[in-house]
This record gives sequence, C-alpha cells and structure tokens, in this order.
Amino acid sequence: MARQRRLTLGLVGGDSCTESETKLAFETGRQIARSEAILVCGGGSGVMEAGCSGAKTANGTTIGVMPGEGPESSPPNPHLDFVIYTGLGQGRNQIVVLSSDAVIAIGGEWGTLSEIAIAKKYGIPVVLLASWSVEGPHGQGLDDLQRAATAKEAVAKAVRLAQGHEAGA
Amino acid sequence: MARQRRLTLGLVGGDSCTESETKLAFETGRQIARSEAILVCGGGSGVMEAGCSGAKTANGTTIGVMPGEGPESSPPNPHLDFVIYTGLGQGRNQIVVLSSDAVIAIGGEWGTLSEIAIAKKYGIPVVLLASWSVEGPHGQGLDDLQRAATAKEAVAKAVRLAQGHEAGA
Amino acid sequence: MARQRRLTLGLVGGDSCTESETKLAFETGRQIARSEAILVCGGGSGVMEAGCSGAKTANGTTIGVMPGEGPESSPPNPHLDFVIYTGLGQGRNQIVVLSSDAVIAIGGEWGTLSEIAIAKKYGIPVVLLASWSVEGPHGQGLDDLQRAATAKEAVAKAVRLAQGHEAGA
Amino acid sequence: MARQRRLTLGLVGGDSCTESETKLAFETGRQIARSEAILVCGGGSGVMEAGCSGAKTANGTTIGVMPGEGPESSPPNPHLDFVIYTGLGQGRNQIVVLSSDAVIAIGGEWGTLSEIAIAKKYGIPVVLLASWSVEGPHGQGLDDLQRAATAKEAVAKAVRLAQGHEAGA
Repeated sequence: MARQRRLTLGLVGGDSCTESETKLAFETGRQIARSEAILVCGGGSGVMEAGCSGAKTANGTTIGVMPGEGPESSPPNPHLDFVIYTGLGQGRNQIVVLSSDAVIAIGGEWGTLSEIAIAKKYGIPVVLLASWSVEGPHGQGLDDLQRAATAKEAVAKAVRLAQGHEAGA
Repeated sequence: MARQRRLTLGLVGGDSCTESETKLAFETGRQIARSEAILVCGGGSGVMEAGCSGAKTANGTTIGVMPGEGPESSPPNPHLDFVIYTGLGQGRNQIVVLSSDAVIAIGGEWGTLSEIAIAKKYGIPVVLLASWSVEGPHGQGLDDLQRAATAKEAVAKAVRLAQGHEAGA
Repeated sequence: MARQRRLTLGLVGGDSCTESETKLAFETGRQIARSEAILVCGGGSGVMEAGCSGAKTANGTTIGVMPGEGPESSPPNPHLDFVIYTGLGQGRNQIVVLSSDAVIAIGGEWGTLSEIAIAKKYGIPVVLLASWSVEGPHGQGLDDLQRAATAKEAVAKAVRLAQGHEAGA
Repeated sequence: MARQRRLTLGLVGGDSCTESETKLAFETGRQIARSEAILVCGGGSGVMEAGCSGAKTANGTTIGVMPGEGPESSPPNPHLDFVIYTGLGQGRNQIVVLSSDAVIAIGGEWGTLSEIAIAKKYGIPVVLLASWSVEGPHGQGLDDLQRAATAKEAVAKAVRLAQGHEAGA
C-alpha cells in the first residue's frame, strides 16, 4: 500500500532524562534522519527534545503528538516541524505508537513503559535502548522485545523491523 | 510563542461529497497552500481528498489524522505528506480541530457539524463554505460563525482569524 | 443481545443553563428514572446536574462520564451514582453518546451541538428539547432530528427510538 | 471530596487467561464485592469476565468500559451491571485506570502491562497478582509496585492503598 513515501519511526522516552539518555536520544534522532525516516514522538522535553534536536542536525523531519489542547498546556519542543494537539493526556501515547512503523524506547519512565506495552499490544515492533526489562508470569516479554546497545544499532534494527511490518501489513 | 513557523488550517468535510463541493474543496486546498499554511484534515476521501489534491498542486504540505489503527482500517488518501493513525474513530475529530489555527468547513455531513461544534467549544475560529446553518434556542450560532462565498474568501478569512487566534493565544 | 437489562438514555446539555432549561432537565431526569432507564451524562453542572437530581428523586440510576483525570480537575455533580474519569476533555462526548441507546439534548451550547452531531454520525437516535436548529446545505437535519415540546414527550420518544435502535442493532 | 460513596477498584487482565488466572480473577472479584467496592474493568472475557462473575456471586456492582463502539464490535461479558462504550480501542485502558481508586492486575498480557504503566504514570496505586515483573534501567519499578500472593491479600492491599489515595487526593 502506498502509505507514506518514507518510513515513520517513533521515539519514546521520558520528558526528563539523564545526561547519557540525552546523548543516546540525540544520536538516535540523528540516525533516524540519516535513514530518511520521519521521527514521530510525544513532542515534549527530555528524550523527545534531544531526539528531535538530533534529527534536525541531519535535516530530518519531526512530528510531535502533544498531550494538551494547545501550546499553553503543551509547549512543543523547539525542534518540531509539525505539531499535533490531542487534548487526550497520556491517551496520546496510542497515537504516537499507531503512527509508527516501529518504535524505539529510551529510558525508564512509566509513560515509556506504557508505550512499549501499547506497541506490543497492537503488533508494532519495538527496539529497547537502555530501557525497561519486563517479564510476564509465563516468561512473556523476554524473547518478544528487541534490544540494541547503541543508537545506530537501534535505528538499523527498527528500520529492518519496520520494513517487515510494512510488508506484512 | 515560537510554535510552528507556518499557520495550520484545518479542512473538514464529508468523505463523500457533491461535484460542486469537490471543486470548492480542491480550490480551498490550493488556496491554503498558496497562503503557505499547512493543511490538516481527517485524511479520508471526499472533501478531504479533494482539498489535499488541490494543496499538492500548489506545493502545499498535507497532514491526515486518521480514525483507524492503520492503513488497512483507514486507507489514507493519496495526497497526504504525513499520516497520523489514532484508533479513536470519530474521536479523531477533536485532534484535527485542536491542531488547527482555524478551521474551514465544507458541506453538510454530521461529522462535519461535530467538527464545527468542537472547534467553537474550544475557541478555534471556523469559516463555513456551503456548509451547515445552525441556530441555538437563544440565537447562538448566528453571529458566531463566519461564512464565505468562495474558496479564496474562506482561506483569506481563515488566515486572518488564525493570526488573531495565534496572537491572542 | 443480552446487553444491559435496562435501557440507557443520554442526557446532554451545557454546564450552565437558564432557569427554564434547569426545570426541563430536572423533569427529563425524573421521567428517565420513571421509565426505568439508566441516565448517562457528562457528569458536570447545569443541565447534567439538574437531570441527575431529577433522576434521583425518582430512584433512578445516574452515571457521569467526566472530561478530567480525577475529581480535582473534574468535580462530579452530587447526584451521580457512578463516576467514570476519562482524561479526554471534550473527547468524552463520544463516550456519553456511544453508551446511550438514545440521546436527549437540552439547550444551546456548542458542546451540546457536538454531541447531537456525533450521535447522528454514529446512528444513535436523538431527541431535541429546546435545543439547536440545524440545516445542512442540502436540507440535511430538518427531517432527521426528532423534537419534543415537553420532558415527558422527549423521554417517551427517546424510549421508543431506543427500543427500535436496540432491536435493529 | 464526596466523590463516590464506595471505593472503585479496577481489575485489569487479559481477555484470555489460564485456568489458575481464571480462579484468581474470580476470587478477586468476589473479594472486591465483599469489601463493598465497585469493580470497574475493560468489560471483556478472560480475567475481566471471571472477576465480574465472582463479584456478582457476592452481590457486587460491575462496570465495563469497552473498546468498541457498541455491542456488535465489543460484546460485553454477561456479568456487567453497567456498560460504557468508548470507540477508542486500547485507548479505553486510560479510562479504566483513571476511574479506579486502585488497580489490581492479574496475568501477563501486553494490554495489562500498559494498564499497570498508565496507572503508575497517573499516580494510581497498583497491586500485582501473578502478573508482570518490570525493572527500569535505574531500578525503577522494583520498589514502586505492590505484590500480593492471594486474591484476598490483593484486595486488602488495594483497599488500603485506595483509601490513602482518596485521602491524599
């Protein structure tokens, strides 16, 4: 199906993050742009802002799907090309995930975990980068989640999974 | 606030429409692009597809906010640059409206009326073009809604209202 | 289908209203309870509070579907038996409507108009009581909307339409 | 704040589950009813149906918040007193969580993990019963989540946490 000309990769992570997560997110955003994918995220600060900033240094395209009803309640980070306001609070996480061909998760916030779980529920591929470990009571999660050690590896895996997801869709 | 460099105008209307509505929507999309605004819509057929088609003839940028969870349940029209999947059904109408600095409504579908009403509820300016007439029991609606007779007039009014909305925001 | 034992009627209207609308809403709620239907509403003040108050005088059951994330952002009116928090803002209107076998609309707020339009879009019957007049560019709306002159008539019509809706569903 | 007279406890878990999870869910529902709390859930089969069935054996009250637009797309389980249709797909999980004073999670489905994470994000207490183990990259999750070994212990912990949540709210 002629959906979008370019792959769309979701970058999910907390609105505050450590220095090393900031660096990972920046480099992940840069690699997303270099792979010519669109970066979609929750539009906020922290991992989201660092990723968008990295994407823009490589001439990428960035879309933010905000929780609030407008710029007063949800100030978009300054590296967004396009801003979508939802008024749904955390309910916007579903939209970030469904709009992605694959999702890369960085860090350990609860909102990030919800996005990982929503993606898996909807069958969207996820790659974890310095993020949550999860294990269900019957061992779920351990083999279902892809991990990467570097930003470059995460984006390469996400692109490959996204292409498989597109082809199968 | 340094939100988006460019204004965003919502184009709302039914997924099926008459020939004259198709022409109006095409020309409205073209005028939106010529005014250098981004066109956001529900991503479907009818008024939405015609508007996006018009925008692309003038090198505009088009965003579709889809009701479904992916391209199988919500096939995007072929003139969209960016596609957002929500999985919210008609609940996506709130997102189209909140993401717009002003909304232009064409035609007489119930979904279109809901978008007009949601926009007014949230204080987003609306311009009607061959669309609904509404009157509340105490005369609401009659003076609150802007009307235009041509696509060009509709976009000019929407741009002016959007700039006022931005400035006041 | 063995859905709910009792019909569910939605009561939609503004969170502020005139004295005559308050009386209409109170009597509508009372009639809903006397017809043994459940009253579902947006849980707020104005028409919603008056309707719930009326329902409770006749031992009815009342459910409020709130826009906010909890009681601080969305204080429920004091006549609700069950409170659902959505965190979706006006997006909760879709939930009120979809949870109703038929909807009764009182008064002339924009949010009320959005609920009328959403109901029609989803094929849920609507009865208007001192509420909006709407007319599409090709005459839509005029014959599609039921009107009532009194609360008793509105509830009787809504019950009849709801039973037809259930039967056809 | 005089919210609801009775506590509301969320029961979250997959729409298919093992025999031992079914027994746990049934007993959890029964204990929720015996504690005079309202049971709110996603309204489906599996853990949700077993919990509602248990609650009704003890004269409890059960509310289902469905993903679909109506009974055709989202058949409610037969033990629900009140049914709310959202049309939001998995987006309804936020509503189950926000409507609960505390949440009890049973089993290891991805949707269940999303509800655990959404609850933590919004500050709603969670008790896990034969459910997910999660650990963030900086040790998040390990001390933040309450666990119980039996249905009775889970409900007792949830009631205590819910009362603290109410008091602090």
